[in-house]
Amino acid sequence: MRGEIISVGTELLLGQIVNTNAKYLSERLALLGIDIYFHTNVGDNEERLKQCLKIAYERSELIITTGGLGPTVDDITKETIASFLNLPLVESEEAKQEIINFFERIGQKPTENNFKQALFPAGSKILPNKNGTAPGFILEKEGKIFVVLPGPPSELIPMFEEHVYPYLKRFTSETIKSRVLKIFGLGESKVEEMVRPLLQGSNPTVAPLVGDGYVTLRITAKGKEEEVYEMISQVEKKIREILGDYIYAVDDEEMEEIVIKLLQKRGFTLATAESCTGGLLAKKMTDVPGASKVFNLGVVTYSNEAKEKVLGVKKSTLDAHGAVSPETAKEMAENVRVLAKSDLGLSTTGIAGPSGGSPEKPVGLVYVGFATPEKTYVKKLMLSGNRDRIRTRSMLHAFDMVRRYLEGRQID
Amino acid sequence: MRGEIISVGTELLLGQIVNTNAKYLSERLALLGIDIYFHTNVGDNEERLKQCLKIAYERSELIITTGGLGPTVDDITKETIASFLNLPLVESEEAKQEIINFFERIGQKPTENNFKQALFPAGSKILPNKNGTAPGFILEKEGKIFVVLPGPPSELIPMFEEHVYPYLKRFTSETIKSRVLKIFGLGESKVEEMVRPLLQGSNPTVAPLVGDGYVTLRITAKGKEEEVYEMISQVEKKIREILGDYIYAVDDEEMEEIVIKLLQKRGFTLATAESCTGGLLAKKMTDVPGASKVFNLGVVTYSNEAKEKVLGVKKSTLDAHGAVSPETAKEMAENVRVLAKSDLGLSTTGIAGPSGGSPEKPVGLVYVGFATPEKTYVKKLMLSGNRDRIRTRSMLHAFDMVRRYLEGRQID
Repeated sequence: MRGEIISVGTELLLGQIVNTNAKYLSERLALLGIDIYFHTNVGDNEERLKQCLKIAYERSELIITTGGLGPTVDDITKETIASFLNLPLVESEEAKQEIINFFERIGQKPTENNFKQALFPAGSKILPNKNGTAPGFILEKEGKIFVVLPGPPSELIPMFEEHVYPYLKRFTSETIKSRVLKIFGLGESKVEEMVRPLLQGSNPTVAPLVGDGYVTLRITAKGKEEEVYEMISQVEKKIREILGDYIYAVDDEEMEEIVIKLLQKRGFTLATAESCTGGLLAKKMTDVPGASKVFNLGVVTYSNEAKEKVLGVKKSTLDAHGAVSPETAKEMAENVRVLAKSDLGLSTTGIAGPSGGSPEKPVGLVYVGFATPEKTYVKKLMLSGNRDRIRTRSMLHAFDMVRRYLEGRQID
Repeated sequence: MRGEIISVGTELLLGQIVNTNAKYLSERLALLGIDIYFHTNVGDNEERLKQCLKIAYERSELIITTGGLGPTVDDITKETIASFLNLPLVESEEAKQEIINFFERIGQKPTENNFKQALFPAGSKILPNKNGTAPGFILEKEGKIFVVLPGPPSELIPMFEEHVYPYLKRFTSETIKSRVLKIFGLGESKVEEMVRPLLQGSNPTVAPLVGDGYVTLRITAKGKEEEVYEMISQVEKKIREILGDYIYAVDDEEMEEIVIKLLQKRGFTLATAESCTGGLLAKKMTDVPGASKVFNLGVVTYSNEAKEKVLGVKKSTLDAHGAVSPETAKEMAENVRVLAKSDLGLSTTGIAGPSGGSPEKPVGLVYVGFATPEKTYVKKLMLSGNRDRIRTRSMLHAFDMVRRYLEGRQID
């Protein structure tokens, strides 16, 4: 079944709200194996809405609309659909009574406008609205299905789950599932080059996408409920054979969660000493509930004086090599490890920009120090992008070293 | 000028991401007085994208596309537009060199795929991409304007602001401007109650909106370039008379930027000692370029031991009152001030949840300590919401105390 979603509301076109309904519905419909080929947002305007309905009617079997079911004169979705399909609007006694009851409950009187919400195109199956006064409806005509839903997500979601999802489920025997593999340390085009043969498959499909500092491969399979997971796992296995330890997480897992889980699993603690990341490492660690078991100290030493006084970085090191140097990164990591009595110490020092760069030490030069009981690693990074990007990538590189160490992988 | 936005990406149709680009662009275009009549999302599919281009071409003068400019075989926006307009793709020497430079900077080699990003439909004005490898372009043909932008917001937004906004500005005479006043310490309904008469105006309009821990009032005026600022300023003045020092910032200014500006202006330095915010204060301070002049030390003491050892919080204080107590907040703020030799010390200690609460000290209980040369303030907060929300609000409360102090306002 081919479907599309038309969202009605001038507020969407003015950029006052973001269309979360289209995302939500698409995600749910994908699970049913219904292909959604288009989303359209259009204003509360009869002519333009009719134009959208006409286009959709010609290319899709399932047309879902959201919004424009309210009681005001602005709200024209129902009237426009009725007119487009040449159907009269018919009053529903039941819906009218619901409106009267609703207003009784809130101790107010309905106006004439409100009764507009009891009108539906002839032949509609009415969908009650538990969370507002605008019912939705489903209309089958000439092999096409119209599903008409209210705009507020608090009304649309329960209505969809209770009435529309079960209604649509009967049209499909298939389901779509996907799994995301998160990759760090390889660029998008490099990843693509490495897994190219797998990108050609049509079921499951494998699609690369760039995240903020990382790359993802999304495996999507379509089939019977009991088969799709196996289909995904087989492709995942092939990808893992190729990309190996560059894959650091699955689905919504974040790098810092992986690190915290590994620390917990291994019974290790970590302390951080930051310069250019300015607290981002500590903040990310403590974003994760329960971080206190594996993280007890973070220090942000933004000046040379603080590096000396709080972390005990040697003045001679700072004088000879500067704050942004492998030597300083090393001492920071080692010293915070001792100060915190932790198993591991992680440090960053670099130039996040936009100013502060020089020909020898340009913006984007960052050293990550990582002190372990066995040895201390220092990694030199040359990062591009703005301050935020440089800091985020430094953080990912730093945590990735910890991940690799705890997983027993190669670090440099 | 009639415009529409076509967002390209199968991930939109699968509901994997929400289309924030369409919202962002629409909001900016509304300010230019450009009417956006449609948003369309379509997958990475040549035939269907061409169909959308055809529909848009017939009804709009301005067609903005987002997404599908990456280096992979999936990415077909540019190729499809060229084919739709019967234009050849031409290699840009400059863009090619940029790609080479980009990869040199990050110490990697471009693949053949990457050079696909140096191809543009003949006649394009190329828009450089500072934050990625996919340049955008503008193409004028037969009275129509195509603006073709990359998908990642971190690339699209700077490109739009730097190149597209100024380009489109010339096509419009009436202007819409708005100014946002940011309010901290009052709830939305309280703000609405206080400024109610001002909410009735039609030009300028005043609209309240809830931000993440703060409330905003957006003043929007429509008129001639030289008049709109005066119209806005008059309403702003009235609002300021009512809300006074609850207004902490204007437009995109963040609380931490205000604090840093005030510190710079007054020649003060600040150090932070965090427990429940876990580095968020330090991270926010150092988000601001140039923070190093006023911020030299942040400490995240997540364990009692770290509070004692690094910050010198007395064991007797921790034993008698616990880590989450006004006494501990006070010592943390005072001691980090001494340790950093800074003018001001700011601390947080509390229970961000989801676990760790007790009947006496529930999740959401947070103490903020603020040490100044004259005295130390401690503020008790009872916050609601999830971990992230509690941490964000703690941060805003902490910085708001510093702001009030530096502005010479009342602190408690």
